[in-house]
Amino acid sequence: MIGCGRVGSAVALQLQGSGWDVTVVDENEDALGRLGDSWTGGFLVGHGMDLQLLRESGIEDADIFIASTNGDNTNLVVAQLAQLRFEVPRVIARILDPRRAAWYAEQGLETICPTQIAIEQLEKAALDL
Amino acid sequence: MIGCGRVGSAVALQLQGSGWDVTVVDENEDALGRLGDSWTGGFLVGHGMDLQLLRESGIEDADIFIASTNGDNTNLVVAQLAQLRFEVPRVIARILDPRRAAWYAEQGLETICPTQIAIEQLEKAALDL
Repeated sequence: MIGCGRVGSAVALQLQGSGWDVTVVDENEDALGRLGDSWTGGFLVGHGMDLQLLRESGIEDADIFIASTNGDNTNLVVAQLAQLRFEVPRVIARILDPRRAAWYAEQGLETICPTQIAIEQLEKAALDL
Repeated sequence: MIGCGRVGSAVALQLQGSGWDVTVVDENEDALGRLGDSWTGGFLVGHGMDLQLLRESGIEDADIFIASTNGDNTNLVVAQLAQLRFEVPRVIARILDPRRAAWYAEQGLETICPTQIAIEQLEKAALDL
């Protein structure tokens, strides 16, 4: 997976806790600190668009690929690389822009859009008044 | 409500569409553009921590107050002002930090945490493999 921020690191730890063998890629080596002392998975410093780095991370044998950096463009491009070039069976991208999330979901990319969820939850909370 | 970004503006438009009388406060006057030509509600430029501005926005008679800026600290402080000082019957704050969202929820503040939702959705998607 790429992106080891608040979301990516929490997901990585949860997956490791569920028995998965996880490798995380992040541009910032300090992000490793978010994984804590119990982290036994891989951690590579670099950009997700670096094909050689993706190969080193084990993408060619991955069952799942998650793109969860803070950049929608990075997540979209790297998710499509994972899907089309490396043929990872399952690819999920976090996309903050609801319109792009909906568009790429229609094109067959699995997307998670926290912005859309926040909108829906606030509306639901307000309208249930 | 305060904050007229992607989330705030979408919620404001939805509430207006449901017949609510909505006033939005944002620091950036360009944010009005997000509300589009059909916006008939109020729009005030300024900071949510400005008590005079909050009064001008009609907070003293509001049924609901939503804090949805991109700053957790602002959302927390202004939501507590709305709740404790202006006694708005229903106050909802968007908080990006899951730990603070959980803590303030325990203290009785209604919080929406898109980060936590993203974590849960990604975990669910990955573990359902």
